[in-house]
Amino acid sequence: MDKVFVAGCGMTRFGKRDESLSDLVFEAAKMAREDSKIEEFDAVYVGSMNPDEFTGDGNISTVITDRLGMTKPSLRIETASSTGAGVFHAAFLSVASGHYDNVLVVAGEKMTHLPTQKSTTMMAKVISPLERIYGATMPALAALVTRRYMHEYGLDRETLGLVAVKNHYNGSLNKYAHFQKEVTLEKVIESKMVSDPLRLYDCAPISDGACACILTSKEKEIRISGLGHATDTLSLAHRDSLTGFSATQNAAKKAYDMAKTAPKEVDVAEVHDAFTSFEIIDTEDLGFFKKGGGGQALKDGITKLEGDLPINPSGGLKARGHPVGASGLAQIIEIYWQLKGEAQKRQVDSAKIGLAQSIGGLANNNLVTILEAC
Amino acid sequence: MDKVFVAGCGMTRFGKRDESLSDLVFEAAKMAREDSKIEEFDAVYVGSMNPDEFTGDGNISTVITDRLGMTKPSLRIETASSTGAGVFHAAFLSVASGHYDNVLVVAGEKMTHLPTQKSTTMMAKVISPLERIYGATMPALAALVTRRYMHEYGLDRETLGLVAVKNHYNGSLNKYAHFQKEVTLEKVIESKMVSDPLRLYDCAPISDGACACILTSKEKEIRISGLGHATDTLSLAHRDSLTGFSATQNAAKKAYDMAKTAPKEVDVAEVHDAFTSFEIIDTEDLGFFKKGGGGQALKDGITKLEGDLPINPSGGLKARGHPVGASGLAQIIEIYWQLKGEAQKRQVDSAKIGLAQSIGGLANNNLVTILEAC
Repeated sequence: MDKVFVAGCGMTRFGKRDESLSDLVFEAAKMAREDSKIEEFDAVYVGSMNPDEFTGDGNISTVITDRLGMTKPSLRIETASSTGAGVFHAAFLSVASGHYDNVLVVAGEKMTHLPTQKSTTMMAKVISPLERIYGATMPALAALVTRRYMHEYGLDRETLGLVAVKNHYNGSLNKYAHFQKEVTLEKVIESKMVSDPLRLYDCAPISDGACACILTSKEKEIRISGLGHATDTLSLAHRDSLTGFSATQNAAKKAYDMAKTAPKEVDVAEVHDAFTSFEIIDTEDLGFFKKGGGGQALKDGITKLEGDLPINPSGGLKARGHPVGASGLAQIIEIYWQLKGEAQKRQVDSAKIGLAQSIGGLANNNLVTILEAC
Repeated sequence: MDKVFVAGCGMTRFGKRDESLSDLVFEAAKMAREDSKIEEFDAVYVGSMNPDEFTGDGNISTVITDRLGMTKPSLRIETASSTGAGVFHAAFLSVASGHYDNVLVVAGEKMTHLPTQKSTTMMAKVISPLERIYGATMPALAALVTRRYMHEYGLDRETLGLVAVKNHYNGSLNKYAHFQKEVTLEKVIESKMVSDPLRLYDCAPISDGACACILTSKEKEIRISGLGHATDTLSLAHRDSLTGFSATQNAAKKAYDMAKTAPKEVDVAEVHDAFTSFEIIDTEDLGFFKKGGGGQALKDGITKLEGDLPINPSGGLKARGHPVGASGLAQIIEIYWQLKGEAQKRQVDSAKIGLAQSIGGLANNNLVTILEAC
């Protein structure tokens, strides 16, 4: 059994921020250091998806480590939009190896200063060139997936909208969230069309933000018990199914096996809801509900904050916001807070095992992380 | 003692290549797979510095893993121009952790299709904004370092040029090198001025290329015995010295300690000669020669292919070429070939311990790797 623990966490409020990326990371890292009471690190692991283009800064791991006043080993990890989970997994392996005892993991992105068309074009670089040449964007391909899911499993527009309603409600209780107000189902289903059937409130926003997490080999309350990671074909066109993501399914299997646990043992989960339909698909890929049953579970209130299996208590990418390289780590930090009983107004009941699932690109670089309260 | 071995390596010819980045990686990975006889991997570790801007492709770890026909876990590592070493170190830790047995490490960059002014501007993003705003580029800051070194230690223009003469000679024996022809000292010191005192032949070229390396937990001939990694201030202005790089010195100390060896035990080394003066500084930072003594050692022929401590038998970044994200891994692969006795026309005599040193940015993210023949 690996002895790798989470010793402390920090996060900036997500949203439109005026600070630089390294100042945001500094704020989150300071909070994590205070939380953990650890001040000396063997390495700094940095997650950021595309700072070279988003902010014009290269060499970001050195930029950030210098800003933190350190000259420790530092490297940047990137796995498209699952980068925050990717950097956590790489840091886990470094501690599990026995070479490092305390590692500072940070993840951040700064994007809101760019015109939406520019950031959308940059984001589209994660899509297969075979699909990009036809003008496909992330929302366009997600819409294709959503429409197919609605066709195969009879999901209706109203149920889809309930994901946004639930997650905005949760976000309204989270002081770190980009959006801290509730939305009505009417507002969701009447919002501006982005790519049919996905409307504005079906899509996570572009946000700025950073978070930080300290891993240690010394026994702490929260242990990292399961990790899984898998990729899938770059092109959607090359897959057998559009309505489930094999990279999540394969990553989940590995994570459950490593943690010696099963979907029914999970008390709380953060899943990658960059689009409302993805939350429904994710909860099926993770084995929480049978294929096609994610919508009904949502309607039944099972995934609400007070339900049997709260999903995205933080508000998810939908309401907490989506600074792309940070989201995967922010999910894990939410699970840490939930297991520690430190999630304040959005605290779920007595959670012992929590799971975070992150999607990279069009669901082709996905990671699953399981934490347990010792 | 860690049980992590290099099982096989592959490399494309560096230079101006028409293939895509993922096709170049495919070519190198195929060679490494044939060399190692390993076909099943637990993960694919990808090093590339800035494909988003250089080639317009994001999500590069998935792009490459898909091109290799795999759906294994994959992530990208970046540490500016030391990326190829950074990805090797991260992959080492993953095998040392016991979670992975066989890992495919690939690194590549494609840059020559860009106009030089464009690639130079993109490369300058690794420099501190405090220095970039004055128009500083990598060669301009390297020139500052070089001039100061010449002033402090009396290095002359001719001795500096001998680095290029030696490395081009070595490159002429290396079928993977970008430049495979010798140059005379006259040609070097009369070449076009880039940034005084650095001339065209003092600077590594911009190249395309890829390489691949397979790490395994199963006993093989070549063991990874020492690793060290350190960062330094982003700005040159914040350092105590311009004529030595503390990140190399600190990384070297860690690598020697881990390998339980010392500079005098090293039989062959690849060092980061993006600029001729850097090779001289590197050989001092690594403890091969006393401070200020690197030039004399070069003049005495100690670092020649047939000398007591051959430096850059491959031709170095100077002649093998410098696809930025690949160079750090290419150095390690050269050491692997030298220790295995497979370096063909550039083979050095009976090397048992070899070292590779890579510089990220303006020497602020540096790594040292030591391999040993078992």
